Amino acid sequence: MFSGAQISLYPMTDDFVGVILGALGALDPWRDRLRIETDDISTLLVGPPEVLFPAMRDLFVAAAKSGKHCVLSAAVSRGCPGEPDDPICRSDETGGPAIALDERKVAAIRAVQATPSTDQPVAAQFSLYVMGTGDHMDEIYGCIDFLKQSGVFERSKNFCTKLRGDAGAVFATLGEAFCRFGPGAGHVTLDITISANSPSAV
Amino acid sequence: MFSGAQISLYPMTDDFVGVILGALGALDPWRDRLRIETDDISTLLVGPPEVLFPAMRDLFVAAAKSGKHCVLSAAVSRGCPGEPDDPICRSDETGGPAIALDERKVAAIRAVQATPSTDQPVAAQFSLYVMGTGDHMDEIYGCIDFLKQSGVFERSKNFCTKLRGDAGAVFATLGEAFCRFGPGAGHVTLDITISANSPSAV
Repeated sequence: MFSGAQISLYPMTDDFVGVILGALGALDPWRDRLRIETDDISTLLVGPPEVLFPAMRDLFVAAAKSGKHCVLSAAVSRGCPGEPDDPICRSDETGGPAIALDERKVAAIRAVQATPSTDQPVAAQFSLYVMGTGDHMDEIYGCIDFLKQSGVFERSKNFCTKLRGDAGAVFATLGEAFCRFGPGAGHVTLDITISANSPSAV
Repeated sequence: MFSGAQISLYPMTDDFVGVILGALGALDPWRDRLRIETDDISTLLVGPPEVLFPAMRDLFVAAAKSGKHCVLSAAVSRGCPGEPDDPICRSDETGGPAIALDERKVAAIRAVQATPSTDQPVAAQFSLYVMGTGDHMDEIYGCIDFLKQSGVFERSKNFCTKLRGDAGAVFATLGEAFCRFGPGAGHVTLDITISANSPSAV
């Protein structure tokens, strides 16, 4: 199943190019498991979810350690019917409704709890979209139940859910939401915003 | 039907707060038709599509006129089953499959052509998500046909479509994609990124 992300990194500083270039090295440990293409709007990462989320985390944490207000925006997708399959995307991580919703919630909570800290606090919000199925809201409400027990839940907002905590737990929570909810072979996307060092953070 | 957007404005400059505050006045003509709530990640705009897209355009153009590299990121949603209805969202603009797909394409092209220029070039990319229907890809392919004739189509990318042109035509194209494709009363979202003054623009 094809999976990947279009990601953009926004450092709110005159030296935004320097912050971005300085953070790119954090992707090096992941490069052999990703296909990467960049243009003036975003960078495409093609690869399995278990690589995409840690790679985005490491890139973002490296940028945030600059101390500047940084935001990562990402559109993450799996199973899009319009995309060809790609061997680099092979994964055993996507669960889907073959496993009962309650079991998936418990597994997702355990995975987040087992994630090491990065010592980088972040705020995030995201929307989970489940396409091509009549019961998409059941999966979304199941995912929201998981989020409320994830340890990084801040609040529900219109159209999205807001998280706050260590970047490790937040990216793990996003990865679990992406892999464990919605049909295993279905078309699922996440629209993610992650922010660090905001002067308006409460 | 409830409709609105979570929007974030990212000026890539040390004076990002000044650029944002300087642009907010551009929302003034729209404020009486919107409900607005802000936190440290995004600003919620609740209102009908015919107000949301011009309001986002005016905000973004005002920020881009600073000359700084600016990005607007927005998650726009209509018909989300989890959101209560709101009288401020009343609209006659959403078409949906009651009208044949070909007619909707023609109407969308005409609407974009009738849009005045803002003299602000932008690049944009977006994904259209149609939830809770088995034939969501038909509507998406129909929308892509429209985009290719919109005059601002640049190229298809993985997971999204890239546009380039005047901010007026680009925001009009996004508004048409949002209103005319997907079920009229259905759950449709757009994930939008709009960029101006990028040093890496080709």
